[in-house]
Amino acid sequence: MSWNRRGLLKGLAAAGAGLAWLGNRSARAAGESGHAEYPPGQGSMMYSPGHNMIGARTEPSGAPPDGAVPYRTFRMNFEIAEHELLAGVKMKAFTFNGRVPGPVFRVKEGEWIKVEATNRTEEMHTIHWHGVDLPYTMDGVPMGTQDPIHPGETFVYRFQARPAGTRFYHCHWGTPLHMSSALHGAFIVDSDNDPIRKAFPYERDYVLVLEAIDLEFTRDELNALLEGMKQVNRQMARGSLHPFTHGFFRTYAELERAMSKDGYVPPYLPGVAPQRRWQANFFAINGRSFPAMAPESLLSIRKGEWIRVRLINGGMGSHHMHLHGHQFVHVAEDGNPLPQPKRMNTISVFPGKTHDIMIHGDNPGFWHFHDHNSFQNMNNGVYPGGMMTHLMYEGIKNPPYVPSISVIQ
Amino acid sequence: MSWNRRGLLKGLAAAGAGLAWLGNRSARAAGESGHAEYPPGQGSMMYSPGHNMIGARTEPSGAPPDGAVPYRTFRMNFEIAEHELLAGVKMKAFTFNGRVPGPVFRVKEGEWIKVEATNRTEEMHTIHWHGVDLPYTMDGVPMGTQDPIHPGETFVYRFQARPAGTRFYHCHWGTPLHMSSALHGAFIVDSDNDPIRKAFPYERDYVLVLEAIDLEFTRDELNALLEGMKQVNRQMARGSLHPFTHGFFRTYAELERAMSKDGYVPPYLPGVAPQRRWQANFFAINGRSFPAMAPESLLSIRKGEWIRVRLINGGMGSHHMHLHGHQFVHVAEDGNPLPQPKRMNTISVFPGKTHDIMIHGDNPGFWHFHDHNSFQNMNNGVYPGGMMTHLMYEGIKNPPYVPSISVIQ
Amino acid sequence: MSWNRRGLLKGLAAAGAGLAWLGNRSARAAGESGHAEYPPGQGSMMYSPGHNMIGARTEPSGAPPDGAVPYRTFRMNFEIAEHELLAGVKMKAFTFNGRVPGPVFRVKEGEWIKVEATNRTEEMHTIHWHGVDLPYTMDGVPMGTQDPIHPGETFVYRFQARPAGTRFYHCHWGTPLHMSSALHGAFIVDSDNDPIRKAFPYERDYVLVLEAIDLEFTRDELNALLEGMKQVNRQMARGSLHPFTHGFFRTYAELERAMSKDGYVPPYLPGVAPQRRWQANFFAINGRSFPAMAPESLLSIRKGEWIRVRLINGGMGSHHMHLHGHQFVHVAEDGNPLPQPKRMNTISVFPGKTHDIMIHGDNPGFWHFHDHNSFQNMNNGVYPGGMMTHLMYEGIKNPPYVPSISVIQ
Repeated sequence: MSWNRRGLLKGLAAAGAGLAWLGNRSARAAGESGHAEYPPGQGSMMYSPGHNMIGARTEPSGAPPDGAVPYRTFRMNFEIAEHELLAGVKMKAFTFNGRVPGPVFRVKEGEWIKVEATNRTEEMHTIHWHGVDLPYTMDGVPMGTQDPIHPGETFVYRFQARPAGTRFYHCHWGTPLHMSSALHGAFIVDSDNDPIRKAFPYERDYVLVLEAIDLEFTRDELNALLEGMKQVNRQMARGSLHPFTHGFFRTYAELERAMSKDGYVPPYLPGVAPQRRWQANFFAINGRSFPAMAPESLLSIRKGEWIRVRLINGGMGSHHMHLHGHQFVHVAEDGNPLPQPKRMNTISVFPGKTHDIMIHGDNPGFWHFHDHNSFQNMNNGVYPGGMMTHLMYEGIKNPPYVPSISVIQ
Repeated sequence: MSWNRRGLLKGLAAAGAGLAWLGNRSARAAGESGHAEYPPGQGSMMYSPGHNMIGARTEPSGAPPDGAVPYRTFRMNFEIAEHELLAGVKMKAFTFNGRVPGPVFRVKEGEWIKVEATNRTEEMHTIHWHGVDLPYTMDGVPMGTQDPIHPGETFVYRFQARPAGTRFYHCHWGTPLHMSSALHGAFIVDSDNDPIRKAFPYERDYVLVLEAIDLEFTRDELNALLEGMKQVNRQMARGSLHPFTHGFFRTYAELERAMSKDGYVPPYLPGVAPQRRWQANFFAINGRSFPAMAPESLLSIRKGEWIRVRLINGGMGSHHMHLHGHQFVHVAEDGNPLPQPKRMNTISVFPGKTHDIMIHGDNPGFWHFHDHNSFQNMNNGVYPGGMMTHLMYEGIKNPPYVPSISVIQ
Repeated sequence: MSWNRRGLLKGLAAAGAGLAWLGNRSARAAGESGHAEYPPGQGSMMYSPGHNMIGARTEPSGAPPDGAVPYRTFRMNFEIAEHELLAGVKMKAFTFNGRVPGPVFRVKEGEWIKVEATNRTEEMHTIHWHGVDLPYTMDGVPMGTQDPIHPGETFVYRFQARPAGTRFYHCHWGTPLHMSSALHGAFIVDSDNDPIRKAFPYERDYVLVLEAIDLEFTRDELNALLEGMKQVNRQMARGSLHPFTHGFFRTYAELERAMSKDGYVPPYLPGVAPQRRWQANFFAINGRSFPAMAPESLLSIRKGEWIRVRLINGGMGSHHMHLHGHQFVHVAEDGNPLPQPKRMNTISVFPGKTHDIMIHGDNPGFWHFHDHNSFQNMNNGVYPGGMMTHLMYEGIKNPPYVPSISVIQ
């Protein structure tokens, strides 16, 4: 890697040369480096005259090339989209393929996966495959295992799907905003040898992605980011970006030294809403809040049937999911089968966790399944709402009562 | 079900007929409907000239009638009562039978239970039997499995107590206020065949209901509700209540459609304190805060004895109960015996959860048992206080020191 | 115990005698009492003319004296020290031996431990040995099992280290401030018979003490305490301290009665920052926040090796530690080996809990290990930061990419 910070600084000093250093950097991207540890061509400048990432394609090391193994290919686009949580409540958010949450992956254990992730926003992103044992070059940690995916760039993740179980993916850049609003989704790895399916024969399988959202935080952070990007573009046009404050480093060691010794902070979220202001006011399952439940969140069951429910906490809240009228069986945690299943009726799902439960159709009726922290059964403070869905037995068509007046105030 | 919203609207339109529609509704209550799915006579109007629920008795379908099985009968009254958390700290709250928490049920597995629940407040209520596998018509979910219990109405819950274990009950209407202050209590189902008693022979058995209370939230919500009810009564007297805004629906499908398509929100808590303002400042065990512990919260033990302690989270907080000087045995979760007990000294009890632990009297002395989040060992910010009790060996009369001056500021 | 409150009040009444009662108290300390339950000489007045604790040494009952058993002796000083969480972020805090967290104890199961704890601050303290089954007179609960350690006093804890496992210690006086900032540390009890070492042969063993810190709360509380102590000293000099308001009691029963009947609150933290204002804005492992990780927090591993990681929650937060690229094995909880280890990739560590995990070196690379609540991967609201460290395989020298510009705003 020959990109040279001293050269850069010299270039900047020379004659108000403006964007001279960008050319320098661009030169690097063309493969000037002979350093063995670094694959060429990664990392770049956005929207600069001499160089941009529109159309660039980054193939990290660590996986077989096309043809060497039979890849199953997925396309993931980072996009800003508007999403409706419930009637009248919309948010703009970074999304995968315009959906909240992102698409559900259903793959086989051992299958070779290729994900072409294209950044169609002006912000950086990555994809972390949470709970998947893949090569670390595919792990999706910006400034850790990869350069973030720049605007316009396509980054190609390749790995074998393993181990089997309920896993998920999410953006690992600027995580508090990106992940807590919408940049996450289920990654389900099936196995022909699944001990859970053997112990509890089932056909139907439900995925519930749990989300806690602070609507105002999401809006304010997104606006601040977009405004910030405009300013950066103006600074670039004037050639007034300062390398140090904007995160130029020749090597990882240099970055690490700057962070630990000089107090340098990567400019992911400087000055934008501190964590203490975040407090979720909307709670969703698969992107929708009660009573506007997503159809795929409604658990349908027949008498005598076992169904599998996969709970994924894709947000920052803590949720305590209570099922009425049943003792379900907790069978897997973090995707991994439990050595001994146990009977429960309320399961806590904390950030970063997945849990699989088996429900047996032994008590026909119409049942609630919801967060037992009732403050998370609200939509912006109005109860009922939020994180709630139903277990509905086939053949039960209506609740057994006449809804009557509920005036209280 | 013949109650007819179009008819109602027409009736309202006609000649400022005022309460005409109330008569209409009242007619429904008299059994006009022939719809097979709906038992007659449920749901009504409160404080209306033509109809009220004072003395009404609702018997939902789904359970054998009196005489068919040997019921053990309990009476539960919803009442507003004043409760003292500790010297000088009182709160008015909705209660069961005037007590905080509600009475402890101790029943046998398989026993037939009949609970006559009378609403002696001007607000709606229900009882949900948390962790009990009963018919869904007895599940106590307002607008879900039953019409809420109206002021003056008696609703009769009938079910078999099962499965064995530590369970609880709570109001499921306007849950954030009702449950987080006081409308909950223990429901203990004993079994002759209890594997826990076999593995750990014990005689004494303690129930600790854990509660997190925001005193100001409770007061403000209660006041807002009472004020709201006055306004409704005035509107009723003038005949100016609007059906849609106040929750009239002919069928459950109609309600559901209104909620999911039109953004209709049932008027449980509209406009009253949003969830983000709730933050517990008092923490209690069985309704009392340290140092004013309830006598039944003090764990007495003899050397060599096993005692059973049942922890129930009846509130919205998260509590991490730490016992000094002992490794207790965690034996049941959500009332269900664990396949493999484990040794611990700190057990997290989240909303909606119950845990049973066995303590062995192997370290005589005077020991603390308290929430390890010290901010919950406070009374309104003053430490020590809150969620704390003692394990006291018989024969140990005093602590082994002379309390001395503790002036620090 | 002959110290007599009536006598005291009489003394105070007599002739504006000022500090007369202090002499009375001092007399007690000299051993006037014949009460069998109370060892003489404990408890005292600070900075009073007639008596102070500078140099005093308290030996509670309940343990063999020097010589009777072979004690291994440790010295612990309570001191105010300045600690740097990361470059430019410093806090003054009560510490053990000037360090944050306190020193790591590594002792053998059954070993006799003697800890000479000297209070070199003007505030009270104690040490609670969390998860250790010791005599209750050594348990460190102020007003519960011991008089707090007064300024200048040395208190001698003596006990056998048991049972084996990952345990910790912390101050139990004014816990919200003392423990949440820095007064805690690891207490590791090794055993020759460790089932975990047998099942997972390992050599390297890491201790990660997790901490959530509200920097402003810590500063404000500490300042308020120091200011309060000045006032007390002035009151003492004038003889105007009132016994009741400042915590004089003849017996524990008297104290208990005052607390439960009269609403008396021990003056630990009166009027100082209520809990509702505490909200952690810094998150640390072993006293340091990302990217300024402490060297001992960096997990080094070789291919094929098992390493043991001991997680201790020494603060008030809830942390969900996620390891990338691996399924680790959860082997112990609260120090006690689990009956059945289980595979996980994210482990929740709540207040008062310890967890041991085994990581197998089966996926060479550079991996993140961090709290999955991303709001706790921030330094005062700036991401990334906080509770984050790395698992680094030996031989992996650099991340596999070129760090590039990360301008976003």
